[in-house]
Amino acid sequence: MNRRRRQDRSSRRQASRPLRAVPYAGLRNPFPPMCVFSEDETAAIHDTALRVLEELGIRILLPRAREILAASGAQVDGETVRLDRGLVREALAAAPGEITALGGSPERTLRFGGMNVTFSAVGGAPYAMDLDRGKRPGSLEDYRTMVRLCQSFDVIHMLAAAPEPQDVEPAFRHLETSRVQLYESDKLPTVYARGTEQVRDCFEIIRIARGLERDEEFTDRVWCKTVINTNSPRIIDRPMARGIIDFAEVGQLVVVTPFCLSGAMAPITVSGALMLQHAEALAAIVLGQCTRPGAPMMYGSFCSNVDMKSGAPAFGTPEHVKSLLGSGQLARHVGLSWRSAAGTGANLVDAQATYETHASLWASIMSGSDLVLHAAGWIEGGLSASFEKFIVDVEMLQGFAELFQPLAASGPDLGFDAVAEVEPGGHFFAAAHTMERYETAFYEPLVSDRRNFGQWQEAGSLSATVRANALWKQVLRDFEPPPFDAARREAIDEFVERRTAEGGAPPVA
Amino acid sequence: MNRRRRQDRSSRRQASRPLRAVPYAGLRNPFPPMCVFSEDETAAIHDTALRVLEELGIRILLPRAREILAASGAQVDGETVRLDRGLVREALAAAPGEITALGGSPERTLRFGGMNVTFSAVGGAPYAMDLDRGKRPGSLEDYRTMVRLCQSFDVIHMLAAAPEPQDVEPAFRHLETSRVQLYESDKLPTVYARGTEQVRDCFEIIRIARGLERDEEFTDRVWCKTVINTNSPRIIDRPMARGIIDFAEVGQLVVVTPFCLSGAMAPITVSGALMLQHAEALAAIVLGQCTRPGAPMMYGSFCSNVDMKSGAPAFGTPEHVKSLLGSGQLARHVGLSWRSAAGTGANLVDAQATYETHASLWASIMSGSDLVLHAAGWIEGGLSASFEKFIVDVEMLQGFAELFQPLAASGPDLGFDAVAEVEPGGHFFAAAHTMERYETAFYEPLVSDRRNFGQWQEAGSLSATVRANALWKQVLRDFEPPPFDAARREAIDEFVERRTAEGGAPPVA
Repeated sequence: MNRRRRQDRSSRRQASRPLRAVPYAGLRNPFPPMCVFSEDETAAIHDTALRVLEELGIRILLPRAREILAASGAQVDGETVRLDRGLVREALAAAPGEITALGGSPERTLRFGGMNVTFSAVGGAPYAMDLDRGKRPGSLEDYRTMVRLCQSFDVIHMLAAAPEPQDVEPAFRHLETSRVQLYESDKLPTVYARGTEQVRDCFEIIRIARGLERDEEFTDRVWCKTVINTNSPRIIDRPMARGIIDFAEVGQLVVVTPFCLSGAMAPITVSGALMLQHAEALAAIVLGQCTRPGAPMMYGSFCSNVDMKSGAPAFGTPEHVKSLLGSGQLARHVGLSWRSAAGTGANLVDAQATYETHASLWASIMSGSDLVLHAAGWIEGGLSASFEKFIVDVEMLQGFAELFQPLAASGPDLGFDAVAEVEPGGHFFAAAHTMERYETAFYEPLVSDRRNFGQWQEAGSLSATVRANALWKQVLRDFEPPPFDAARREAIDEFVERRTAEGGAPPVA
Repeated sequence: MNRRRRQDRSSRRQASRPLRAVPYAGLRNPFPPMCVFSEDETAAIHDTALRVLEELGIRILLPRAREILAASGAQVDGETVRLDRGLVREALAAAPGEITALGGSPERTLRFGGMNVTFSAVGGAPYAMDLDRGKRPGSLEDYRTMVRLCQSFDVIHMLAAAPEPQDVEPAFRHLETSRVQLYESDKLPTVYARGTEQVRDCFEIIRIARGLERDEEFTDRVWCKTVINTNSPRIIDRPMARGIIDFAEVGQLVVVTPFCLSGAMAPITVSGALMLQHAEALAAIVLGQCTRPGAPMMYGSFCSNVDMKSGAPAFGTPEHVKSLLGSGQLARHVGLSWRSAAGTGANLVDAQATYETHASLWASIMSGSDLVLHAAGWIEGGLSASFEKFIVDVEMLQGFAELFQPLAASGPDLGFDAVAEVEPGGHFFAAAHTMERYETAFYEPLVSDRRNFGQWQEAGSLSATVRANALWKQVLRDFEPPPFDAARREAIDEFVERRTAEGGAPPVA
């Protein structure tokens, strides 16, 4: 829960109770990354990717993107663009290794790079899922619910914006979702790159929301992010290329993410799939840096394997874990901050959903990921956003946030006096050492229930998923949006009304 | 599944199909351990534990144990024994850093230390649990089921022996459980230290089973293990002290495991609880090494925190994870191999059971644990052994076994030719690079189901736990015990019959 809300609840219970003040925002990962490749192997993957870009090239479907690259010295042959390693080197030198992004209040500032860790919830899912209503097409109400849940937990650091509100016409969807993100939350919003007109509408709404009057106030700092997927193998399509350009031109954050499924859209080996991912990510980064040197861009990975039984993408597998660890090595090799993702192919919030998500979260943490997308609420291979899954995942994320906090290990913490105070065979419940610390010593879980079997049975034998159902509904009942300036709100509403009257902006393919 | 069984099933399906030959026995962890303490802090915890042993001492309830320690120079005052740091240093110098243990066939040989990883299933649970029959007192049939499940999966490397067969009188239980372990499995058996008479019976059965005629054949090598818990704080009770002596005298493996629950039987800080754990573990190791220098002993941790809502022991919490990581540092500090444990306080096989177990498994792996106990089938804070949980946990353990395997990352693995072969926007399904590898490229899951939502619904919308129920029953139907010499079996049956007629051996308190 966020700090203020915990304070409220706590003061209702007992005014004098001290609070555990573990900050779940501004997380830093103190652990050195796990590696699956040697340095030589990492360099060989990088080098092979450079050979792909030089010798085989990549198809870039947007003429304007090819023009930008040609002007920077790329060799353009029809739609195929070949990038030499000098051009890649220049782009990597220009791209910032650390990026700061701003939300609606100072405590929402995010830093990518330097072992800072940012968690974001499920994005892109067309469906919503919960225990009450099952799976159904996402609605604007579901979208608002997810934004409110994201706003309510400090460990979710930015917005991802799912499920897709299918009850809103595509031409108006970007307007409505931007409003919901900004009115219900002060965390960094997400914009989908579905054509320049939509993107500019979203930028305008964000500028009004943040009170940015001069262009430079917007373009000199990061106020939103988009995710750019390549069409593996070796295509950057028109909307994605346009998105890179639209965002780079005004200095907004592009998270480049090839979707390289081993054995389907990418080579079947983990190293081969990562090699293709690396080539495609570098091509996108070159395009962004040629558009505007220094444009904020992150390296991204969404590389897993096909389930050989079903042919479906699989997540949280050993191959996925290794891909994440290897991606971290490649991102560090090129000096960029990078995004990973958690995931599961399960169709309900069960043991499989949990171990697959948990494995990909652990791998994200151990790979030194700067931004973990889909870290809460993702289910069904990303087709649905689940509210119960969101709660269960937040419990896991809070566990990582706690793990990042240093241990006290000096003087009285070491417990000599406490042990001296308690007779052999006695207990520490009433020891002074315990009394001074017990209210703040341990993480207080969100959904975990550790009552004994009899008590748990008497309380209805509820699973964690059923308990999570009650929890997200309680969070919604308690929800209060952050303060929002009335004049800005009026200006945004006027803007949306005008653009709606003009027919909105259909997504561009 | 074990290799032979997979081969059988595979040859039934398709004789020519190549097998994925990932060895799940003989695992080695290639990853450097995660640390939560600095080296200075680790040294300070060790030093504080030495102060506890020197200044406060430990109560040792068995007179014979105090005699052994007094003869080695310990200061004995009533039941309180004070150990100076010189004595601890000598014991640590005598204790082996690496230990080899033998099963019933050469491929069951285990090595502890040197980044070898051994997984063992749930031990000590009084109850059994499954979806068909719910929770009930463990029976010998349940015990046999668990031994058969352990035998059937290569990733379970030794036996832990649970649930407790409550339908067998305590005086005969050690005889029956020894027979079941040895007849149904060729993996390293477990013996409970419940009095010298029981222990000697078990040793005799193991000697017959392994064909060891001369004493030295038994005493020079490790043929079984026991777990010794201290009674925190600062007591080693009579059966436990007797167990240390009984096992050390004949060179069998003692896994020393204080149960230090922060805020209850140990100081509330993680560093303080680990300090007490360390003091108690060192005391037990001194007793074993004074009994027989060089006796095989492992350092152990079972340190977690109390759930502040229920007062119950909690597992898989952030504090438990940190305790595991810190315990690994302390074990390495004293140069011993060490055991960790997985766990959960959940009462059913749900999301909580999974994330708590998975967190403690990840922490075990990242802490460099040599032996992970309770790694499959543990539920309800260790009160029950669950067959569905066993299957779900084996899936997670196989994931770690896969993660330990090195990645191919040179030449054609890097995928340049594969990428050159496939046009942009094409797919790799039919690429030569894929065809050569697809049958063996990916881990084939045991219980995970990644079919799409519709197919999964048509198949009955089964959760992983329900699928696990069908799986363990299938494994039992397919079960064939390993070969066992008929003459030895006859000799064991005769021995058990005689000891039964003699009234068995009641457990000693």
